[in-house]
Amino acid sequence: MVESLSRPFPYNPQVPCTFQIQTTAGSARRGQLIAPHGTIETPVFMPVGTLATVKGIPQDLLEEIGPEIILSNTYHLYLRPGVETVRRLGGLHGFMSWPRPVLTDSGGFQVFSLSDLRKVREEGVTFRSHLDGSSHFFNPESSMEAQIGLGADIIMAFDECTEHPADARRTRESMELTLRWAARSKKYFEEHKHEVPWRHEVPWKEVASNQSPIAINPGLLAAGDRPPAAEQQLFGIVQGGMDLALRKESAERTIEIGFPGYAIGGLSVGEPRHLTREVVEATLEHLPADKPRYLMGVGTPEEIVEYAAMGIDMMDCVLPTRAARHGLLFTSEGRISIKQARYAQDEAPLDPKCPCRVCQRYSRAYLRHLYAANEVLAQVLNTIHNLSFYLDTMRTVRQAISLGDTPRFPHAAER
Amino acid sequence: MVESLSRPFPYNPQVPCTFQIQTTAGSARRGQLIAPHGTIETPVFMPVGTLATVKGIPQDLLEEIGPEIILSNTYHLYLRPGVETVRRLGGLHGFMSWPRPVLTDSGGFQVFSLSDLRKVREEGVTFRSHLDGSSHFFNPESSMEAQIGLGADIIMAFDECTEHPADARRTRESMELTLRWAARSKKYFEEHKHEVPWRHEVPWKEVASNQSPIAINPGLLAAGDRPPAAEQQLFGIVQGGMDLALRKESAERTIEIGFPGYAIGGLSVGEPRHLTREVVEATLEHLPADKPRYLMGVGTPEEIVEYAAMGIDMMDCVLPTRAARHGLLFTSEGRISIKQARYAQDEAPLDPKCPCRVCQRYSRAYLRHLYAANEVLAQVLNTIHNLSFYLDTMRTVRQAISLGDTPRFPHAAER
Repeated sequence: MVESLSRPFPYNPQVPCTFQIQTTAGSARRGQLIAPHGTIETPVFMPVGTLATVKGIPQDLLEEIGPEIILSNTYHLYLRPGVETVRRLGGLHGFMSWPRPVLTDSGGFQVFSLSDLRKVREEGVTFRSHLDGSSHFFNPESSMEAQIGLGADIIMAFDECTEHPADARRTRESMELTLRWAARSKKYFEEHKHEVPWRHEVPWKEVASNQSPIAINPGLLAAGDRPPAAEQQLFGIVQGGMDLALRKESAERTIEIGFPGYAIGGLSVGEPRHLTREVVEATLEHLPADKPRYLMGVGTPEEIVEYAAMGIDMMDCVLPTRAARHGLLFTSEGRISIKQARYAQDEAPLDPKCPCRVCQRYSRAYLRHLYAANEVLAQVLNTIHNLSFYLDTMRTVRQAISLGDTPRFPHAAER
Repeated sequence: MVESLSRPFPYNPQVPCTFQIQTTAGSARRGQLIAPHGTIETPVFMPVGTLATVKGIPQDLLEEIGPEIILSNTYHLYLRPGVETVRRLGGLHGFMSWPRPVLTDSGGFQVFSLSDLRKVREEGVTFRSHLDGSSHFFNPESSMEAQIGLGADIIMAFDECTEHPADARRTRESMELTLRWAARSKKYFEEHKHEVPWRHEVPWKEVASNQSPIAINPGLLAAGDRPPAAEQQLFGIVQGGMDLALRKESAERTIEIGFPGYAIGGLSVGEPRHLTREVVEATLEHLPADKPRYLMGVGTPEEIVEYAAMGIDMMDCVLPTRAARHGLLFTSEGRISIKQARYAQDEAPLDPKCPCRVCQRYSRAYLRHLYAANEVLAQVLNTIHNLSFYLDTMRTVRQAISLGDTPRFPHAAER
């Protein structure tokens, strides 16, 4: 009687996920990552949509802001609404009605950072939910099972995020565990990847005639061809703490296992920023140039430009969305704490150089009022602006690389 | 250096506000109310935007949902951000960047319902802020001053909302006070209405060439004419408790003072619904047929249809927006409490007959997940739907009257 909304979004039936570097500028790379649900222009910043929502932003507004891929958290979705619910609704794309690529993390980082009474063994991790204290178990196999059920375009190996500081022995043991878990993640994934909820659901001809907003690459196949089914891509994660030799070893042995993309994990865990930069630089040397390189959990607007200049292709961070909820806004003139009384009668737009729908319509005075009055619209508008600023920053980075320039973050004075 | 956003919105330079009834069906009336910032099709439902925001909804999405007028609360805006701030930013239209008509209440109702240690005297009301306990004073003159500064298209006389139950003597005394305050409200308004922040600011030629989304009525003036300045309209409020004789007297004596529109106040204060209906019906008989009639603070979808059928032209209520925040959704199939576990895997849209962007894109399962996970997007999407349902209901009512049919609310089974 009631028409179902659960038809899956069409996807780009290219297999496997391919990455092409179009041009370089110094160490920086301008490329394209072709994923089942769309083509991702790199370097790319991925907004975080923890619980299958970028907090406060309807999906149609999010599409307009323009991220080509968003990140969602396996740990959170496993607890609420549960993987099986998402899987039955067609995976994350169908569940949250988001047609573009999605990446899920493995759940490992949240298990380590959010849950109590964590117990790590060779087999996996026992932990208690941060919501209700209930007991759960994650291991490489169950993380893969969850991530296949969630159906993101790119999924991550189950790793242990080494704490900081950690001594040499602890760092090596943790790295070795991550390597064994990486092999187990890959094995389970290869055996079960056909279980992804959107696989086989949309034959090529239907995709080709569908008026979806997704950019399908029609040149990939001749008209009428039935292509091989699209597949999720499992990325490996390099650990090794702040030890450059261990980072090298972790990179080499993760590459030996073999993944279509590699992440640098275990950073932004409290270490000083110069150390992060040093570890990223050293690790990048040992990653294959023809595969996407993903730096997890960074950073400020200045940092994402800097890491892109170093040769990072993918980044994610809660900073733009979380800062927005606390009234901290990134602008071409620097950071603005909109709660300050100095903005109470400021008629200017938040950022006079920003084309986003917030800066085009509202004054700082209005944004300050919404924040001071604890109005939900403050979070909505602040998030729209901060994400627009981050994504515009990455567009500028890509443009610079295309022109052969090393991307750099302009000082406020120059803007 | 920074371009100001504070240019006022253009307004329709028709003076004074005019109301025209186009057709009737039984007691129901289909009309147009021409206000400075646009033409309002009646019967109309006015969403509530307490603090210069319809909670959680960006103004561009609100424009799309389509209210022709919204209501904002003088009491709340007086406390935060303060009338002077709103006035300096061009009044509510400029402050919140809302180009269409706005109505403000007098502050009286909130003083009576929200504040502590209220003390009513002939001169006015002393009250304590519900925010910080600070002491304030409202009277007819200060309410008019505030409402002129806020610059809504339609403003309300300062009245005493009689509590329920109240005995005969108390009800009469309260009604007499409201009448004296109505005369004082009108006197102050007439002497100060030229102080409205948007008056004289936009000459006609600029208005005519502006590409604003506001519907200007170009036939009102010949091209190039400079029109008389637009003015706010002050409506009177009929009180009298549940006493039909006092309601009649209040209506007659309020009409003697003379206003361009009349509201029925003091209802929905805890009395049984049949009594509300009886008082509305009895009061309507004594209101002039050629002036807009505004029933304050109602109601459910069924009630707004019923009151429109009785001849009410304007209504407002927090119900659609407040219920949305509590997960109570109005649909063509009846009410849905989206928090219920039965919707956890429901692939259907919230209301299969609703054209709103929520029902077109998301499943009940997703909306249930957002609500259960306490995600802000739940409030945003639920509010969009409930307001769309209310406004669609009123569109259907207007269409019925235009066709000569008495509006009635269809039973779920018939839909």
